[in-house]
Amino acid sequence: MTTTRPATTESSTTESSTTESSTTGGTLDRSDPEGAIAAAAARCSNWGRWGDDDVYGTLNLIDDAKRAQAARLIRRGASFSLSLQFDMDGPQKGWRRRTNPVHTMLDTGTDAEAGIQGFPHGLGGADDVIAMPLQCSTQWDGLGHIFDHGRAWNGRRAGAVVTSLGDQVTGIETVADRIVGRGVLLDVGRVCGEAGELPDGFAITVDHLAATIEHHGLTGRVGTGDIVVVRTGQLQRARRDGWNDYAGGAAPGLSFTTADWLHDTDIAAIATDTWGFEVRPNEFDDAFQPLHQVAIPNMGLFLGEMWDLDALAADCADDAVYEFFLSAAPLPVTGAVGAPVNPIAVK
Amino acid sequence: MTTTRPATTESSTTESSTTESSTTGGTLDRSDPEGAIAAAAARCSNWGRWGDDDVYGTLNLIDDAKRAQAARLIRRGASFSLSLQFDMDGPQKGWRRRTNPVHTMLDTGTDAEAGIQGFPHGLGGADDVIAMPLQCSTQWDGLGHIFDHGRAWNGRRAGAVVTSLGDQVTGIETVADRIVGRGVLLDVGRVCGEAGELPDGFAITVDHLAATIEHHGLTGRVGTGDIVVVRTGQLQRARRDGWNDYAGGAAPGLSFTTADWLHDTDIAAIATDTWGFEVRPNEFDDAFQPLHQVAIPNMGLFLGEMWDLDALAADCADDAVYEFFLSAAPLPVTGAVGAPVNPIAVK
Amino acid sequence: MTTTRPATTESSTTESSTTESSTTGGTLDRSDPEGAIAAAAARCSNWGRWGDDDVYGTLNLIDDAKRAQAARLIRRGASFSLSLQFDMDGPQKGWRRRTNPVHTMLDTGTDAEAGIQGFPHGLGGADDVIAMPLQCSTQWDGLGHIFDHGRAWNGRRAGAVVTSLGDQVTGIETVADRIVGRGVLLDVGRVCGEAGELPDGFAITVDHLAATIEHHGLTGRVGTGDIVVVRTGQLQRARRDGWNDYAGGAAPGLSFTTADWLHDTDIAAIATDTWGFEVRPNEFDDAFQPLHQVAIPNMGLFLGEMWDLDALAADCADDAVYEFFLSAAPLPVTGAVGAPVNPIAVK
Amino acid sequence: MTTTRPATTESSTTESSTTESSTTGGTLDRSDPEGAIAAAAARCSNWGRWGDDDVYGTLNLIDDAKRAQAARLIRRGASFSLSLQFDMDGPQKGWRRRTNPVHTMLDTGTDAEAGIQGFPHGLGGADDVIAMPLQCSTQWDGLGHIFDHGRAWNGRRAGAVVTSLGDQVTGIETVADRIVGRGVLLDVGRVCGEAGELPDGFAITVDHLAATIEHHGLTGRVGTGDIVVVRTGQLQRARRDGWNDYAGGAAPGLSFTTADWLHDTDIAAIATDTWGFEVRPNEFDDAFQPLHQVAIPNMGLFLGEMWDLDALAADCADDAVYEFFLSAAPLPVTGAVGAPVNPIAVK
Repeated sequence: MTTTRPATTESSTTESSTTESSTTGGTLDRSDPEGAIAAAAARCSNWGRWGDDDVYGTLNLIDDAKRAQAARLIRRGASFSLSLQFDMDGPQKGWRRRTNPVHTMLDTGTDAEAGIQGFPHGLGGADDVIAMPLQCSTQWDGLGHIFDHGRAWNGRRAGAVVTSLGDQVTGIETVADRIVGRGVLLDVGRVCGEAGELPDGFAITVDHLAATIEHHGLTGRVGTGDIVVVRTGQLQRARRDGWNDYAGGAAPGLSFTTADWLHDTDIAAIATDTWGFEVRPNEFDDAFQPLHQVAIPNMGLFLGEMWDLDALAADCADDAVYEFFLSAAPLPVTGAVGAPVNPIAVK
Repeated sequence: MTTTRPATTESSTTESSTTESSTTGGTLDRSDPEGAIAAAAARCSNWGRWGDDDVYGTLNLIDDAKRAQAARLIRRGASFSLSLQFDMDGPQKGWRRRTNPVHTMLDTGTDAEAGIQGFPHGLGGADDVIAMPLQCSTQWDGLGHIFDHGRAWNGRRAGAVVTSLGDQVTGIETVADRIVGRGVLLDVGRVCGEAGELPDGFAITVDHLAATIEHHGLTGRVGTGDIVVVRTGQLQRARRDGWNDYAGGAAPGLSFTTADWLHDTDIAAIATDTWGFEVRPNEFDDAFQPLHQVAIPNMGLFLGEMWDLDALAADCADDAVYEFFLSAAPLPVTGAVGAPVNPIAVK
Repeated sequence: MTTTRPATTESSTTESSTTESSTTGGTLDRSDPEGAIAAAAARCSNWGRWGDDDVYGTLNLIDDAKRAQAARLIRRGASFSLSLQFDMDGPQKGWRRRTNPVHTMLDTGTDAEAGIQGFPHGLGGADDVIAMPLQCSTQWDGLGHIFDHGRAWNGRRAGAVVTSLGDQVTGIETVADRIVGRGVLLDVGRVCGEAGELPDGFAITVDHLAATIEHHGLTGRVGTGDIVVVRTGQLQRARRDGWNDYAGGAAPGLSFTTADWLHDTDIAAIATDTWGFEVRPNEFDDAFQPLHQVAIPNMGLFLGEMWDLDALAADCADDAVYEFFLSAAPLPVTGAVGAPVNPIAVK
Repeated sequence: MTTTRPATTESSTTESSTTESSTTGGTLDRSDPEGAIAAAAARCSNWGRWGDDDVYGTLNLIDDAKRAQAARLIRRGASFSLSLQFDMDGPQKGWRRRTNPVHTMLDTGTDAEAGIQGFPHGLGGADDVIAMPLQCSTQWDGLGHIFDHGRAWNGRRAGAVVTSLGDQVTGIETVADRIVGRGVLLDVGRVCGEAGELPDGFAITVDHLAATIEHHGLTGRVGTGDIVVVRTGQLQRARRDGWNDYAGGAAPGLSFTTADWLHDTDIAAIATDTWGFEVRPNEFDDAFQPLHQVAIPNMGLFLGEMWDLDALAADCADDAVYEFFLSAAPLPVTGAVGAPVNPIAVK
């Protein structure tokens, strides 16, 4: 695993965010992962913050005023899809039954042309079906995706939330109209990496985030209710070199030590161009996605994964504007603990 | 089949649209459906209009300027999801292999709580998969969905476009970033129906559209590049009375005679709250979705179906503002001839 | 609920079977379903009978000698498939996410003929996929399908057997080579019904079974290790009148009072031509498949459902031979709690 | 009927390396694959042999008398499943959308134990679904699986047989009750390989088959209507070394030069323990499964693939009896061009 690079300046973090309070994220005690996770969970918990019945988590931090403000960021009207294609040649290799989408045709143009479809007056048709894991490509993690010691978001019992029938409390459909607001790109790959890419295993710390924000200037500032998209450059690498272990292998990503930053900035959501959001291998010798364990059930934070940020990032580098209107509404599958999404950024 | 209701006034249509040229849609010759379809297709064809290689059809009519203009329609920042839930209790009954989504869990909170998942430090997880027809719920028809006498959009051979591998030319992924712009609600159900609902079999004519536009006033005007959403009220009825034959049965919808209006207004796309966009039963004794046959392969028009317009419509009725920013990016399934979408309207 | 027809004579049951010990099945106390179920479960339990680690249940009662004996029943070499087609027009209507099979093509002859597949030297191909509930058509219930007060077969904790990963102890793959032996048809529909059919709601009692065995003579005798197939005639009715509520609605079937007969005869398995094996509606006012609850987790009995027995039954009526060699090996889906099967009877 | 053709020389097997051209199966002209395929197809064609309407192909060669005779091969009553498990950890890697089965639970024992299922009186249940390619594991190729220059079995147009709706003429359901008869194991791996295994790329010629039959003696003789199962040992290797490229990569298998043997022996069907039946890479520089192209559309021969023959082969080696009763009825998926099967051999 790679260590983090030192922050460029001590002062960078204080300038970086309007609301941030944690400056360095603290040191990581690798000898006690369970203790470290529990401590971070306690510091960052939002349980009860929006009432006992809350199902929105940090999406409570986006309101209409925030959206109206975000709309004013649309100047040219240029739109960017931040979605990978849902493609049979995607990154999945069957790990934990996560396959690529299987898209098959119920009717085809070949059949129509052969005149065998039986419709009158020359009508022909094509139709199709899909079978796929809900998190096989660009997606949001729902609040029912991860539990901490048997507890889901807001302190509910995991077994009372997600059964074989799906997430009966915080299913992704509950936030169908909510994930629309100000997006901010933090192109950490470009600022802190080489040729726009961070190496696999690179842990993005608060210092890296601060350096990136400082580089981006005013339009890169992160505050309450923002949807932050962090570009590591790993997807650019996969696009060039092949998927390899993109889905589940080593990757750059957020350090466990960013937990407090994620909490204190009061962002509404965060997404990356990697499979798993946080750095892989994880920073503890024996751990599995410990930042998820703090962020989802304890903070109620929405995490996006496998977002394609490259075209947007190129545009942002061109005009030095890193903020935009973002509409990233998940497909509202009833009871889903994650959902595919085609996020649209408009500048 | 139900007949149409008379238009309220002759003058309504001329006031209704900035670009409309067909005032009545002409009379429908029921004795020769194939001839009528061919004639409408000839009048309304956009083949070659955007070059021989075009894959965008009427989405060419949305440009950045249009999107920037649409952004200025966001005033309050209120967002509305126009999507039904993708739900196992949805309207599908298996006709032509169209089932409701089958959403199943790979891991659950029940399992996590039982401590059998094997993750360290108290982490638990839930994950899920889906199998569904791409047009089982709220969706866009892609340009490869319908053919006319073996021809797909822009005159291509159907068999050269959509094979068992999917739509290799106009797959829905080609428009992943395009369907964002000005939306206009035409609440025909409210203006021309009773208690906000048109009866099944009601054919919405140009006159009904004109009357609705006149009722809605300036914000209801329809012009180049707009995305029109037509509310019939059928979904409201299904929500109250049960799905019954919502997916495939009798329904209010656009009259075949609106073909010229659809073409001449230069709209970018149109969607309804019904299963099949056009009136059902169709207006010819022997026909199957004849307006699709004109609109998709000949005009290159994007059609949306099973959109949930009720909450938006209630808001529009409240503030008498029928236009909005609309982000309706389809899930970019490679090669799909239709795709699920969670359209977001922001006012 | 329908009542049963009286048995023809008191003595019929004692003559009917070589091994049967329960003569009437006892009376049914409808006032205390939970008590009745518990009592039957206690009387019929096979827990521990084949050791603590057993995963075969009543299939232990088939051994090689039994199979060799069954082979000698093959005289003419006539084979009968007892399977329904796995068909998109099958009986399922989506209840509890049970759809009919969705069978789609990955490649077609139409495509091959159009010359677009890219194989050399004139080769063309077709390929296909399926998505289906494992119990949507002709199938075996596995031992992990039903639990009694949180206990699975042989007394194991249900949650230690079947998790989101499937049945990790008694998955259907464990019996992949076992369900081969002597089959006996009991055509209760023909003997006790009208025109070969029992009405929906008809509860088949021990007396009906006995009368049927008496009618069938020596070849209809039921003993240790036999696989009994009970024909009610409901499928014949569905084939004539349409599926209607075949999958889940009212049906003829085994009475709860046959529990002891099922146990005491030491049969290896039993299957019917109905969706749910036991009579529907169930014989208690408030109950759901109480005979399953006794038979599967307590006896370890394998139940087959939706078997097509009509062609075999016609042949048996013709030659008055009701026994045959039966090969009914389930598709060995790892961890499945039920599995499709194409049972083959050979006479 | 026929016996095997005697091996020409004792030394033939020792000449049998990966590059060998067979001595009696004719020499292989590698310079003209299309010509070689066409010539073999002409020599081996069975078109019209069983009438113009035939849908059974070589399965016509099994009749009741053959099955009755096969039944007499059952002596001990020992049964063997020749099926791999249908398992998420199977050999598929997504090539041509062939994934491993995705088996998910609709209900679990964990849920039942948690008491959240809502059934009365302590009943709990588990249920499951599957999505899989029909040829992802142990399977039969149907007659609609392969075409030769746009022609399917018996000379029909490929596009008239297999459309997006499936195989409408020779769908696998048409042979639901037919594949039952005498099975013969030819353990070529044991006779001609090392430690029971042929190397990848090893082409099994007529000489190898003859040598194997000679080794096996009377019970290994192959004649009219037999179902031949050929063990190469590749599956044993995959079981030991991991799947690697078992599904689609290099493999031992039948040489193209065995086409005439397959035809002239009048066997009913043949299966192997490999993914693709014939040797891979194919014996022409530029070809794809040329023996399939001769065998399926021209002979009407049923091919089985990915059969697990190891336990049966061990038993045959023990008792030197290589023939058995074989019940290998495919799952009758309507219109399928291939189908999963759990073949049962009984000795």
